[in-house]
Amino acid sequence: MKSLNTHFPKIGKIAYEGPRSANALSFKHYNPAEVVDGKTMKEHMRFSIAYWHAFRGVGSDPFGPGTIVRPWESGKDPVSVAKVRLDAAFEFFQKIESPFWCWHDRDIAPEGKSLAESNKHLDKIVAHAKGLQKATGVKLLWGTANLFSNPRFMCGASTNPDAHVFAYAAAQVKKAMECTVELGGENYVFWGGREGYETLLNTNLKREQDHLARFLHLAVDYAKQIGFKGQFLIEPKPKEPTKHQYDFDVASGIAFLRTYGLEKYFKFNIETNHATLAGHTFQHEIEVAAAAGALGSIDANCGDQLLGWDTDQFNTDVRELTLAMISILKAGGLGSGGFNFDAKLRRPSIDVDDLFHAHIGGMDAYALAFKIARRILAEGKFESFVADRYSSFDSGYGKDIETGKATFKSLEKLVLTKLGEPTPKSGKQEYLENLLMQYLHG
Amino acid sequence: MKSLNTHFPKIGKIAYEGPRSANALSFKHYNPAEVVDGKTMKEHMRFSIAYWHAFRGVGSDPFGPGTIVRPWESGKDPVSVAKVRLDAAFEFFQKIESPFWCWHDRDIAPEGKSLAESNKHLDKIVAHAKGLQKATGVKLLWGTANLFSNPRFMCGASTNPDAHVFAYAAAQVKKAMECTVELGGENYVFWGGREGYETLLNTNLKREQDHLARFLHLAVDYAKQIGFKGQFLIEPKPKEPTKHQYDFDVASGIAFLRTYGLEKYFKFNIETNHATLAGHTFQHEIEVAAAAGALGSIDANCGDQLLGWDTDQFNTDVRELTLAMISILKAGGLGSGGFNFDAKLRRPSIDVDDLFHAHIGGMDAYALAFKIARRILAEGKFESFVADRYSSFDSGYGKDIETGKATFKSLEKLVLTKLGEPTPKSGKQEYLENLLMQYLHG
Amino acid sequence: MKSLNTHFPKIGKIAYEGPRSANALSFKHYNPAEVVDGKTMKEHMRFSIAYWHAFRGVGSDPFGPGTIVRPWESGKDPVSVAKVRLDAAFEFFQKIESPFWCWHDRDIAPEGKSLAESNKHLDKIVAHAKGLQKATGVKLLWGTANLFSNPRFMCGASTNPDAHVFAYAAAQVKKAMECTVELGGENYVFWGGREGYETLLNTNLKREQDHLARFLHLAVDYAKQIGFKGQFLIEPKPKEPTKHQYDFDVASGIAFLRTYGLEKYFKFNIETNHATLAGHTFQHEIEVAAAAGALGSIDANCGDQLLGWDTDQFNTDVRELTLAMISILKAGGLGSGGFNFDAKLRRPSIDVDDLFHAHIGGMDAYALAFKIARRILAEGKFESFVADRYSSFDSGYGKDIETGKATFKSLEKLVLTKLGEPTPKSGKQEYLENLLMQYLHG
Amino acid sequence: MKSLNTHFPKIGKIAYEGPRSANALSFKHYNPAEVVDGKTMKEHMRFSIAYWHAFRGVGSDPFGPGTIVRPWESGKDPVSVAKVRLDAAFEFFQKIESPFWCWHDRDIAPEGKSLAESNKHLDKIVAHAKGLQKATGVKLLWGTANLFSNPRFMCGASTNPDAHVFAYAAAQVKKAMECTVELGGENYVFWGGREGYETLLNTNLKREQDHLARFLHLAVDYAKQIGFKGQFLIEPKPKEPTKHQYDFDVASGIAFLRTYGLEKYFKFNIETNHATLAGHTFQHEIEVAAAAGALGSIDANCGDQLLGWDTDQFNTDVRELTLAMISILKAGGLGSGGFNFDAKLRRPSIDVDDLFHAHIGGMDAYALAFKIARRILAEGKFESFVADRYSSFDSGYGKDIETGKATFKSLEKLVLTKLGEPTPKSGKQEYLENLLMQYLHG
Ligand SMILES: [Co+2]
Ligand SMILES: [Co+2]
Ligand SMILES: [Co+2]
Ligand SMILES: [Co+2]
Ligand SMILES: [Co+2]
Ligand SMILES: [Co+2]
Ligand SMILES: [Co+2]
Ligand SMILES: [Co+2]
Repeated sequence: MKSLNTHFPKIGKIAYEGPRSANALSFKHYNPAEVVDGKTMKEHMRFSIAYWHAFRGVGSDPFGPGTIVRPWESGKDPVSVAKVRLDAAFEFFQKIESPFWCWHDRDIAPEGKSLAESNKHLDKIVAHAKGLQKATGVKLLWGTANLFSNPRFMCGASTNPDAHVFAYAAAQVKKAMECTVELGGENYVFWGGREGYETLLNTNLKREQDHLARFLHLAVDYAKQIGFKGQFLIEPKPKEPTKHQYDFDVASGIAFLRTYGLEKYFKFNIETNHATLAGHTFQHEIEVAAAAGALGSIDANCGDQLLGWDTDQFNTDVRELTLAMISILKAGGLGSGGFNFDAKLRRPSIDVDDLFHAHIGGMDAYALAFKIARRILAEGKFESFVADRYSSFDSGYGKDIETGKATFKSLEKLVLTKLGEPTPKSGKQEYLENLLMQYLHG
Repeated sequence: MKSLNTHFPKIGKIAYEGPRSANALSFKHYNPAEVVDGKTMKEHMRFSIAYWHAFRGVGSDPFGPGTIVRPWESGKDPVSVAKVRLDAAFEFFQKIESPFWCWHDRDIAPEGKSLAESNKHLDKIVAHAKGLQKATGVKLLWGTANLFSNPRFMCGASTNPDAHVFAYAAAQVKKAMECTVELGGENYVFWGGREGYETLLNTNLKREQDHLARFLHLAVDYAKQIGFKGQFLIEPKPKEPTKHQYDFDVASGIAFLRTYGLEKYFKFNIETNHATLAGHTFQHEIEVAAAAGALGSIDANCGDQLLGWDTDQFNTDVRELTLAMISILKAGGLGSGGFNFDAKLRRPSIDVDDLFHAHIGGMDAYALAFKIARRILAEGKFESFVADRYSSFDSGYGKDIETGKATFKSLEKLVLTKLGEPTPKSGKQEYLENLLMQYLHG
Repeated sequence: MKSLNTHFPKIGKIAYEGPRSANALSFKHYNPAEVVDGKTMKEHMRFSIAYWHAFRGVGSDPFGPGTIVRPWESGKDPVSVAKVRLDAAFEFFQKIESPFWCWHDRDIAPEGKSLAESNKHLDKIVAHAKGLQKATGVKLLWGTANLFSNPRFMCGASTNPDAHVFAYAAAQVKKAMECTVELGGENYVFWGGREGYETLLNTNLKREQDHLARFLHLAVDYAKQIGFKGQFLIEPKPKEPTKHQYDFDVASGIAFLRTYGLEKYFKFNIETNHATLAGHTFQHEIEVAAAAGALGSIDANCGDQLLGWDTDQFNTDVRELTLAMISILKAGGLGSGGFNFDAKLRRPSIDVDDLFHAHIGGMDAYALAFKIARRILAEGKFESFVADRYSSFDSGYGKDIETGKATFKSLEKLVLTKLGEPTPKSGKQEYLENLLMQYLHG
Repeated sequence: MKSLNTHFPKIGKIAYEGPRSANALSFKHYNPAEVVDGKTMKEHMRFSIAYWHAFRGVGSDPFGPGTIVRPWESGKDPVSVAKVRLDAAFEFFQKIESPFWCWHDRDIAPEGKSLAESNKHLDKIVAHAKGLQKATGVKLLWGTANLFSNPRFMCGASTNPDAHVFAYAAAQVKKAMECTVELGGENYVFWGGREGYETLLNTNLKREQDHLARFLHLAVDYAKQIGFKGQFLIEPKPKEPTKHQYDFDVASGIAFLRTYGLEKYFKFNIETNHATLAGHTFQHEIEVAAAAGALGSIDANCGDQLLGWDTDQFNTDVRELTLAMISILKAGGLGSGGFNFDAKLRRPSIDVDDLFHAHIGGMDAYALAFKIARRILAEGKFESFVADRYSSFDSGYGKDIETGKATFKSLEKLVLTKLGEPTPKSGKQEYLENLLMQYLHG
């Protein structure tokens, strides 16, 4: 494994130094080499860096352009710049101990004047990335196609009213899937950033959803053709940039997949900030996906719950993450998925070391949450409380209800003749919240 | 038909007097007898009065008890009071020209000390109501069981962790279904007011959803047994009273129904205020239900979009209603459903005539929206705009996409060799919004 | 007056054609020449075009770059382009019958490599604009300085922790005030787009507010020096781009102004979308400003109440505008203020005629609301209802309360000995809402 | 001091057992006797129990009546019941180690048929409470009058359009102030639960605010007459029960107080849940009050940021509380204020021990936050970071700006001739968030 050290000469590999280290550029909780249950923490956590935010984010917002200037952003032509940027990125991946990365096609390679030229650029960059992956051991968690930035997609990609745009999007996803395969990507993601509407006044909602389903079926077909064995993931988001997006939340995604016979092929990539924008907790979305056997991967970030847009912040709220991690671990983990830091620096965080601080915080918070959640599950207090709470369904007429032996008639008879009035039982929420606080600050 | 005139002696039958009448106690737009396309407006609109708000609402809120005192609320025992109240209600239904009403079991009849006693009360009241229905011609749009007020349901009814409560709820719904049949109800509604959770810390989300599905299957089975031919309806609501309800919105409902094989038996009762609490427009929820062939009925009200709870106000926003009505009419109408005023008087609206004002406003607003929407659809400007917008899918490779003949490969080839770059086309939202304003204020 | 006709050759002056005209490019309600109460509608409405949206808006959003390409956007250098753009703008102002325009310094003239160069550019453009104003009769409603886009302002302008940035901002506002005077601007606006914080962890809130107050005092001083007689206006906004802005809403602005002795010098520029982002209705913010004698001007747009960011849409909701207009007219109008369309085209509205449609809709909606509000006030039904409602304070002990003659003691005695228990009176909200509906759709 | 032990025979005095105790009915962080800086933790924290939630809360919500049944709730007449309830409460206060309590007049004593009778009831209960205070050493943090529950207040108390209601409210507050004095209350609170409006259609906003101001002036006058030396507090809340409340947030309160010359007499009682309903963080409201020298007391609870109503939950989010505590300690603490648990049990938390769990959690969370905040301030890392960040204002032209020596002209000259372009400096938000995480989970 080659140790890259060109673009961040002042910052070496981030070391684990324990919870009390005074060194801000060290891990306090994420110890990549620590072995837990026969696997290293690096293997457990499956962290991934989001190329778009970490290496294409410039700190722009709707009221101002970029604030961040990186030294490696120069070169004789866009492809050359893209290659050097990739070198810097892999150096960062290595130093921050991230085993994975993720990309959109247009993040890593510049868009050309035609699709053919864009594809050529992409080929060059993918070849370069392949070399860097080999040299560093960093792997691709997932790839995806950017079908939302270019003006051609302003009214959607597969849901665009113009069939020409559907065709263009199909061609672009085809290529992005090929590149994902080429780089050994373990998943492929669909985030329908403009697959929604601005106003129903100009929209045929049903026809658009039909087109979206057709598009996904074509992707499934093409995956078979090229032997892509990775997992397809849908990333729900309720709104922004559009007024309303079809994959509003996990439940909407399930409704869509089942309506169109796609449920076998897709799982969900759940983003914390998208969950809260949809009115759900992060943990809720995980539980809904898990109940459907469709928990795929995590876009690890958070929003500001007093703000109504996707702030994509680094999440250091260990309480929120512990709750999420409990549900993830109970569901058996993420499989081929991972924790991808789809999070961006605040606009004024312009220093190179801010990029490190941000990811260190995110990784530490997740690693700590993982450890606390494991301890909680090992001690089983919450789980046994919940099991007891539902135990009336484990035998007798409760079991008959679950197994389908009871009917309205038999249950009515039971109530009228034997059971009478139920006795309310406390839900003990405050007791449980105190217990959680104790695990978090014990 | 008997004309009732005991409880509102100062207010006669509300007459249609046209848009400029200075009489506040007249209809300005709802002319029940007006014939449109071979049906009266009364038949078109299928208005319904919600018994719980109109006759059990007292103006309480979380910070104060009831403010409304009705003269008919007295009698020697609860059942007697309930009968007189029902007399007053039918007089109101008649005077306000509402062809339908809706109830929860516990609205119309008092809860007894046991289920058996409650059932007896209910039987007496149902008999009384049957007489009033016959005398006045007012019909039952739907019945439902209140499975959320009594403390026994504080942790849910069919999703309660205690099987005893599931059994009790089953018995109660069985009876409510029987009463609905007895009164010729055209639909039966399930609103899962406590079918959700307060905290995931004490909840088995999957097991609760399994129980909810089992419950609905039992209802379907029982409907067959008793020959109930009406439509089952689910009324989604995202939250309140619980932190999170399983039937969050129409899409969640579809996901749930399809996951558990219930989609054939249920449609949706869409409430305006529940739509906006879930982050959707009223029209959006209608469109989602319509796309699934599951548009059932409407709970006609509105919320205050700056407030985060279910305000259940009477809706006089003709713009919002016109948009909704366009989507309803395009979907072929509500079938066995109707427009049920699930709306309550503001706490300070304590006069008897406020009850009339409120419903007059709601009916007029809906009737006007209906007329404007019909005019919009008759002139076809929006529809032809939308049809044109998607016309590239009507022939050529667009049609191939819809019919499944295109593949990622064929589309890529098309783009690379023929189509090139798509030309963005304006969505013309502002033009369309102006057109709508013209219909509303032309 | 010169009639410009170069950049929109296919679109002539927009004519008033009445409510039923089938010509989308006509006014339905705004008839500039119509005389109402001795003043033309053009004089009454004091419409203004926001240069930044109308002529610098390109349809970008956080997930994609601009979609809008204008033919006049070319030239040998930025200043030349800026001049041609200004020509196009004034042609638009003239054709759309807008008597006013508004700008930020950096909208109209390109930023140079130094402040000195920026000032030179600005001088050239202001001279050009002065000629265009003279030629067309279009006047400047207000000017302002953009203190939020450039990365130097990323942590605030006058509230920046770096005194250097405060100084820079001071210099920039000085110049913008001079330019406003040069162009006869009737007001000068302060919108503190970054005068707030991203996190309290790095913020001295008190010191920042002290600096903001100092800055405004310096502006007041400088206005005296240069003889600027126009009105200073603060435009509140709760958040976005920052997490929290100091001028959160009108009430926060009043608290700030009074705390720092600035209340004599400032009124408020109220933006509809900012009102709703702050949790208030548009009408509420107008009423709060009016109660403080500080109603200055209006940024005319609207948001989408289901979206949590500043969508700055053109407002065609005549109901919302009528309510606002009632409060504005009751407060005696806007004085030197006007209705400035701080509204932008939706991203897919890329046609030149969309710019016309959007403003036509906004103007028509406001003009119609103005007319309805005048009719409402002329008939006085709402006003006399409200006057009656409070009439107990017009005489007797009610008047004693208002005039300060009553005390807790005297009032207690009154209640204990004479008054007893008050009788609740209905607020009659539904009746009033019906009345409003009748005015809107009569 | 008498040890009460009648109503909670199974639960003794809650003991401090340290962070790892397995006993749920022990304090993990709040050690009342622990001496910190010469004062016990009990003296530092000044905890208070809110009588209304703890002893009058029954678990009702808008969709169902109470679920909580307490054994002490019986007796021959309402006043007798009220006395026993008070006995139970003081036993609870003592066992939970709370040095203070708070009440509304109507919580502690039943409302009679007339004001005179209500006052008599109140006198009896106040006498009883005085005895209990003496016996247990528990003191009154603040009293207040309930001016929102009774239907007479449905349109406001001091802002009611009916002068009769103003008079009634004056009489009621007069009595509540007298009772507060009698019980040695250290503060008196005004929460304007209905001092707002449901609709502007029927409201004279200015006149209502004038009346509210008059009312507060009368209270100030009466306090002088009766020698009440405690602090008057306004408790802001943006909405609920009304659509809009005049004391929307702290800034609105400051605007109001300064507009009416009341700022000398009032500070703020800040409630966490009201802060977030108004769109602010808890810490923000504290900082705004502190900047105005008006930080009075805290209503300690939290909301659910995904729910739009006042959930009044017990707060165990140590992160949120630590941030708040940093700002409180920096402001010099709460003076005569305290931390009052204005928090209620979740509806299904019906057991008596839930009341203990809930308050133990709230107390522990605050005590832990207090300790962490003290450590943070002692180490000074955040404070010195912030001081450095603004240090350019400590000398040179920065100091000239603060001291009023600089002008727009002098600053422009400085920029043009010396300073040139400022260099942006990182705000280092992620670094600071990591540091906070380390303090919370170190
Ligand atoms: Co994401
Ligand atoms: Co995001
Ligand atoms: Co409903
Ligand atoms: Co509702
Ligand atoms: Co604006
Ligand atoms: Co705006
Ligand atoms: Co409170
Ligand atoms: Co509260």
